[in-house]
Amino acid sequence: PMKVTLSRKAHFNAAHRLYRKDWSDEKNDLIFGKCNNPNYHGHNYELIVSVTGEIDPETGYVLDVKFLTDIIKTEVEDAFDHKNLNLDVAEFHDLNPTAENIVVVIWNKIRKRIASTLDLEVVLYETPRNFVTYNGK
Amino acid sequence: PMKVTLSRKAHFNAAHRLYRKDWSDEKNDLIFGKCNNPNYHGHNYELIVSVTGEIDPETGYVLDVKFLTDIIKTEVEDAFDHKNLNLDVAEFHDLNPTAENIVVVIWNKIRKRIASTLDLEVVLYETPRNFVTYNGK
Amino acid sequence: PMKVTLSRKAHFNAAHRLYRKDWSDEKNDLIFGKCNNPNYHGHNYELIVSVTGEIDPETGYVLDVKFLTDIIKTEVEDAFDHKNLNLDVAEFHDLNPTAENIVVVIWNKIRKRIASTLDLEVVLYETPRNFVTYNGK
Amino acid sequence: PMKVTLSRKAHFNAAHRLYRKDWSDEKNDLIFGKCNNPNYHGHNYELIVSVTGEIDPETGYVLDVKFLTDIIKTEVEDAFDHKNLNLDVAEFHDLNPTAENIVVVIWNKIRKRIASTLDLEVVLYETPRNFVTYNGK
Amino acid sequence: PMKVTLSRKAHFNAAHRLYRKDWSDEKNDLIFGKCNNPNYHGHNYELIVSVTGEIDPETGYVLDVKFLTDIIKTEVEDAFDHKNLNLDVAEFHDLNPTAENIVVVIWNKIRKRIASTLDLEVVLYETPRNFVTYNGK
Amino acid sequence: PMKVTLSRKAHFNAAHRLYRKDWSDEKNDLIFGKCNNPNYHGHNYELIVSVTGEIDPETGYVLDVKFLTDIIKTEVEDAFDHKNLNLDVAEFHDLNPTAENIVVVIWNKIRKRIASTLDLEVVLYETPRNFVTYNGK
Repeated sequence: PMKVTLSRKAHFNAAHRLYRKDWSDEKNDLIFGKCNNPNYHGHNYELIVSVTGEIDPETGYVLDVKFLTDIIKTEVEDAFDHKNLNLDVAEFHDLNPTAENIVVVIWNKIRKRIASTLDLEVVLYETPRNFVTYNGK
Repeated sequence: PMKVTLSRKAHFNAAHRLYRKDWSDEKNDLIFGKCNNPNYHGHNYELIVSVTGEIDPETGYVLDVKFLTDIIKTEVEDAFDHKNLNLDVAEFHDLNPTAENIVVVIWNKIRKRIASTLDLEVVLYETPRNFVTYNGK
Repeated sequence: PMKVTLSRKAHFNAAHRLYRKDWSDEKNDLIFGKCNNPNYHGHNYELIVSVTGEIDPETGYVLDVKFLTDIIKTEVEDAFDHKNLNLDVAEFHDLNPTAENIVVVIWNKIRKRIASTLDLEVVLYETPRNFVTYNGK
Repeated sequence: PMKVTLSRKAHFNAAHRLYRKDWSDEKNDLIFGKCNNPNYHGHNYELIVSVTGEIDPETGYVLDVKFLTDIIKTEVEDAFDHKNLNLDVAEFHDLNPTAENIVVVIWNKIRKRIASTLDLEVVLYETPRNFVTYNGK
Repeated sequence: PMKVTLSRKAHFNAAHRLYRKDWSDEKNDLIFGKCNNPNYHGHNYELIVSVTGEIDPETGYVLDVKFLTDIIKTEVEDAFDHKNLNLDVAEFHDLNPTAENIVVVIWNKIRKRIASTLDLEVVLYETPRNFVTYNGK
Repeated sequence: PMKVTLSRKAHFNAAHRLYRKDWSDEKNDLIFGKCNNPNYHGHNYELIVSVTGEIDPETGYVLDVKFLTDIIKTEVEDAFDHKNLNLDVAEFHDLNPTAENIVVVIWNKIRKRIASTLDLEVVLYETPRNFVTYNGK
């Protein structure tokens, strides 16, 4: 049984600030620096979603890439694109939207939508030079 | 006299919303759609600044690229990076921060800093698929 | 009146072969080489469509990028994507689908859809290393 | 003994259609949609071939990259470039040329040509946004 | 008569140092800084060569891209690749190999090889963020 | 405990030649070909440094990316940028600066600077088409 990984790139644009409500302004500034601008800044987030599983001998697919594209659209693009992550996205009301926390949130949303026989990995680019990877382990 | 164009790439991250104070919320929504999210969204803006002039036969430079890099840092990166364009940047207090308006503002800021014998063009990428170009004409 | 260029990237996948019906197979082979494979080969064509005009002081736009995106979708993507250019696209029934001829066809299709006050340029990448540019001049 | 991975990028252009001879046209259309165009479509396939092994202390190489480049040329570029995968390539006469099936075929062709002490992984980009990975496991 | 621009990307790797024999070491250091390292440093130079002319109605080509690729190989890649520009390339024995001077040298070498009816432009990337453009004007 | 990988891209420009002092010129030429040019050639090296560890629930970071950026600057950029690897960098006085050997040297320099609870991987691009990866195993 040959296992192949199928990957799909997507993107969304969002504003955020790094900030903990339970810290003083001074501590937020000290730890998060310019990323703590109270008026927010933003990014063009790029996303690579990868699923690994056996090739279906009928179709020659691990998964129809249109199915994966639709899941990413529903779970990530519709939810995060042109949004303020801190204010508009429920998952970050009490969770600091660092790249690390965002990639785990995205992984959990997609994990629920695909078969348990498939492994899942998500890469999130916050900028072309900074990115994070999570595979649930 | 040989004229060569010297180009330098740079980038900044910022939040913005498309919005006119003098329009109703309904009109802002109608014209600017999801780009009018009152909580802002954001981008990794990429910038290409190009100056055209004669090669200095002494140095072999049109302009020392370090000099151009410093101007971009002072005029654009220090002023716009990790900022909310609508709230934190004076030029956009009464000017809608569309890509077109941003590129003209950047061009004007850099124009003042380089010799009048040099032509100037600025390209601004709002996303990898949308960009604008201005050369002062 | 400030003139700014607004650019939008798009893409389509298509099969083609370089071939003239009115030439012998030998001449087609001699001139077009492996690009003349009678069973076709294909490309991921990348496209940059640029319109130049004055900024509308009301909206801050040269053109709403959604409008430009829709024109590209209708005129190019719906017409060419996942098609065999020689067999499925009327414009190439009697026109050899070289990159040069494709970019002129695309330019003419988009030219009809935008205001005559706007200049138009189209760049077409046949591969990441070969591309062509046409601006109607 | 330090294990390093050496990777080489390559590319080929090809036409294909997703299609099973043993299915009805209706079923092919239902499952493969526009990818089943009977006149074919095509792609600029990009390839990353990676071999992992110990550094030879004599040369400082895992493998001479020229040797790897030559294998890719012989096994992949000469065999697939400017071809119709369904019609011109023996491996796909009875195998649907999905990205998943193509990457496994390429892996098997290269696997035979390199030492068994080296691990092998192949990544195949069908488009800049869709890609697959196979490592023989 | 429709004029189209045909562009081809190429690359070469080379060492260089910025340095004038007729200046003191102190002046070379002051003007060229770390680019004046007497032991040299190096770059992966990327090149875009563009020719503009009328489409030949017979072939549908401005120029056969294989012809342009061959000229670039002979005039640029064979002459500059894996070379020390200051020591191994005659044109730079008495000319400081700044990006500006290199792009003019390349333009002159290619200009001699193509028809006078074609316009020529060369873009040279010294790094992904610094590049120069020359068109003979 | 969720483990996330944080990655940071960086770059440096350097000259080198592939060469062993203890081999004859003939053997160096035979094995290393044009990479053995005694006058050196050079590259824009691109680097991706990745650390894997648990997210700190206080900050939402695996590691502050500014901390990782500073380590890369000190250990790699300051040491290698605009240098001749063979002549200016102590680690390569008796070690052939192949991509494989360079990536191991870089990994060892960064390994000493980060906590032992973090896994480390380094990818080094010698050119856009050739790269190597090392993770200490």
